[in-house]
Amino acid sequence: MKFYDCSTAPSSRFVRMFIAEKGLDVETIEVDLRNHEHLSEEFRSINPYCTVPVLETEEGTRYTSTQGCWRYLEEKFPEPPLMGRDIEEKARIADLIWRTDIDGFFAVAEGLRNKARGMKDRAITGPNNYAQIPELSDRGMARTAVFMQSLEGILGENDFMAGNSFSAADIMVFVTIGFASWIKIPIPEDAEKTNAWYKRISERKSASL
Amino acid sequence: MKFYDCSTAPSSRFVRMFIAEKGLDVETIEVDLRNHEHLSEEFRSINPYCTVPVLETEEGTRYTSTQGCWRYLEEKFPEPPLMGRDIEEKARIADLIWRTDIDGFFAVAEGLRNKARGMKDRAITGPNNYAQIPELSDRGMARTAVFMQSLEGILGENDFMAGNSFSAADIMVFVTIGFASWIKIPIPEDAEKTNAWYKRISERKSASL
Repeated sequence: MKFYDCSTAPSSRFVRMFIAEKGLDVETIEVDLRNHEHLSEEFRSINPYCTVPVLETEEGTRYTSTQGCWRYLEEKFPEPPLMGRDIEEKARIADLIWRTDIDGFFAVAEGLRNKARGMKDRAITGPNNYAQIPELSDRGMARTAVFMQSLEGILGENDFMAGNSFSAADIMVFVTIGFASWIKIPIPEDAEKTNAWYKRISERKSASL
Repeated sequence: MKFYDCSTAPSSRFVRMFIAEKGLDVETIEVDLRNHEHLSEEFRSINPYCTVPVLETEEGTRYTSTQGCWRYLEEKFPEPPLMGRDIEEKARIADLIWRTDIDGFFAVAEGLRNKARGMKDRAITGPNNYAQIPELSDRGMARTAVFMQSLEGILGENDFMAGNSFSAADIMVFVTIGFASWIKIPIPEDAEKTNAWYKRISERKSASL
């Protein structure tokens, strides 16, 4: 297997952490997003969507989304299970992953990419240029704050986002919170459980990656 | 089980079709989105995100995203498999679902919700109001057109989106194309394989729902 990563990118950090939690040793190829390597002809031939993560299997098949990469790894290397151990947990994790992606990760991305000076015309990742929409940046920031506030209720009395064991839902939320620091939106100070959870996850080996 | 649906909504059509393809008979509760029933206190207590689909299990657990509902149904009622029959197919379908959701469904939603007169301040589904951003509508329409163009390549020589059998990836793309007709963006005329595929899927019983 080969994992196309960018060590500073939250998009591929989802897969980086997942691989580490599975205890796998995967050949990793660094893609230099800062110098637009992802937009080069060479990388386009690997992933026409010009994004990381990309996971390439031994057979040469490539998956170009976190969800594709995660599903492959979960099925191929079932232990430890990160996408649920029973039906209910699997569905709950799927719910949380989707919710966090849409209400969290994309909200942060909207907030960041529609205003950052270095991202002019790069409001959306991928091969095509799209102009920044400053109003969308404001909305993304507002939505990120709402997402942050919601975590306390999702966590409830559980130790982890989807219940009593670590899962991909924790990776999803953890990476999204890290990404939100780029636009300076932290976990609310009074969200005690969320802050305690974040600290606990931060101490995992995979979280240092 | 209970399925909270709105018979005219593409968001819950994903689950409607999936249930039909599984051959299940599920108690369905119609939520009148047009008259804002989803924003009522009563529905909020069922789903605080104020959206359909919602799938409620026998045990009373509720899943509030297509991905959560699909995962539950796939695990609980494995036949016929709609989310992949082997590792590679599972991962490919996960990739396609995510891609279609982000590049297709959300692009259409942006196009529609940020301009439609009846959706003032409802640029995003959910409990909170967000002002329309007309520029985002234009961008959503442009992105929808790009998505439509991409289908021919995804389909390739296959009969179905993820290979040689019908799957949730077909539902994802089919419903998204139906939704795109709301903003009058059709499959490109010269996309022969996509048009033929669309016609084939349209003939399935589940597609009439």
